[in-house]
Order: sequence, then structure tokens, then C-alpha cells
Amino acid sequence: MKMLMTLIAISSAALSFTANAQFAKPEDAVKYRKASFTLVGAHFGRLGAMAQGRIPFDAQAAAANADIVANMAKLPWAAFGEGTDQGETKAKSEIWSQASKFKEISDKFQSESVKLAAAAKTGREDAFKAAFNATAGTCKSCHDDFRSK
Amino acid sequence: MKMLMTLIAISSAALSFTANAQFAKPEDAVKYRKASFTLVGAHFGRLGAMAQGRIPFDAQAAAANADIVANMAKLPWAAFGEGTDQGETKAKSEIWSQASKFKEISDKFQSESVKLAAAAKTGREDAFKAAFNATAGTCKSCHDDFRSK
Repeated sequence: MKMLMTLIAISSAALSFTANAQFAKPEDAVKYRKASFTLVGAHFGRLGAMAQGRIPFDAQAAAANADIVANMAKLPWAAFGEGTDQGETKAKSEIWSQASKFKEISDKFQSESVKLAAAAKTGREDAFKAAFNATAGTCKSCHDDFRSK
Repeated sequence: MKMLMTLIAISSAALSFTANAQFAKPEDAVKYRKASFTLVGAHFGRLGAMAQGRIPFDAQAAAANADIVANMAKLPWAAFGEGTDQGETKAKSEIWSQASKFKEISDKFQSESVKLAAAAKTGREDAFKAAFNATAGTCKSCHDDFRSK
């Protein structure tokens, strides 16, 4: 059955990783999504330091970090499948009970992070800051509603 | 001093993340590199299932997973800076005492993973398998020499 689900998962959606069947065990999925958020956080933090003026704006560094965030932003959502509400996780039950709201906000984060990467590439600090703030807003909304303190 | 190092790190190397000064604390760097290897492992594992015939070869899925591996393969090396040989890590001291060998093998992993992503895109299973095996060989070499059991 797991084999069948893996086959379905891989053949049906190469780019939209939607199936937790990609993970042998729920704890593998939890570890995976936490890893992806760790990387998002590290690179987003570097962008934040620029957006908030703690370090000078550097267009090349901003673009490089924003590209990583935009790539990474696609990854965690496949890892919120069945059985992954347990264990070492801050995921709230609302992720599953309000699944469409969770999807909407995670989609918004992804689209804003793509815009952020594009804004960083313009080299215009004001565009970068505006896009950073829009993206950060999606992080905050999701954390407020779907992540335990 | 940390601020100065951060400035130097960010302004000097946008794409080659070489400085551990990007991390506020050594343990942040350790967490970051472990997260990147977790993601590499998850996606490489999916490629391995195809390369080893446990699931059928799917060119689109292979290309998607290999792209993620190739992107992720750039990340962990900046996180092996000073002070990161401590704590919750399997990193062997040889990483620092044989730094040029470690760099050579990590560069090789990165270049092989780029070739793997290209091979996956050809849709040719034999090319994909050969490139997978070449990449897997770099993983193994590095783990043999530089990672504790």
C-alpha cells in the first residue's frame, strides 16, 4: 500500500509535492518540514537584517538569499500529511481542521516570496523592503494561526 | 565585531556562502547544515528509489527532485565555520584538519549534483542512473572520511 501510494505520489505530481506518502514515517515528514523552515528562517533572517537597516542593503546578497527562500518556500507543505500532527512539532490542529485556510496562506507565502526574489533582483531598496514586508506578513499570519508558541 | 564580520560576509560573497559569520551562534550553523542535509537526503532518497528500481523511473519527478538536490548542495558548506565542531554534530575533526580535501569533495558533490539534474532532464534512465551513482559516490566518500558513525 505504501508502495502504491508512493507511486501515485511521484507519478501524479512531480512539482507540487502534495503527498505525505513521500515519507516513510510521519516523523520523517515532521523532520523534513522543520528542516525546510530552518533554512527559510536563516535566509529570511539575512533579508530582514537588510530590510530593517541593521546591515546595508546589498542587492546581490538580497537576490541570492531571496532566491533560496523562494525555492525553499515550495517544500514544507507536502510534509503536513496524515499522522504528522504528533510528536516534536508546533503544528496546531487547525492546520488540518482549517486546511483550506492553511493552503491559502501557504500559497500566499510562496507567491510573495517569488515577488520578493524578483524585487531583490531590481536592486531597488524600496521595492525590496516593500516585498520583504509583504512576505514577512504571510509568515506572521501563518505563525499566529497555525503554530503553537 | 560580529556585525563587521556579517557585513564582510554578506558583501563579499553573495553566491558562495563561505563565512560562518552569517550565523549568530555556532549552534545555529550546526542546525542549519543539518537541516540542509536532511533535505538533501529526503530528495536524494527519492532519486535513489528510482535509480535502484524500487519505483519506476519518472523523468519529471527525477528532474524536480534532482533540481532541489542541486540547489541544496550549495548550502551546508558555509556552516562549517569556526566553533561548529562542537555540540550535536557528527562532523569529524578532519573537516577542519583536512580542509582542502573536505572542500574538494564537497565541490565534487556539488558539481555531480548539477550533472545529475541535467541527466534527469534528458529523460534517459541510463544517463540518470549513471549520474545518480556518481553523485552517490561523492556522498559516500565524504561520509566515510568526514562523518562519525
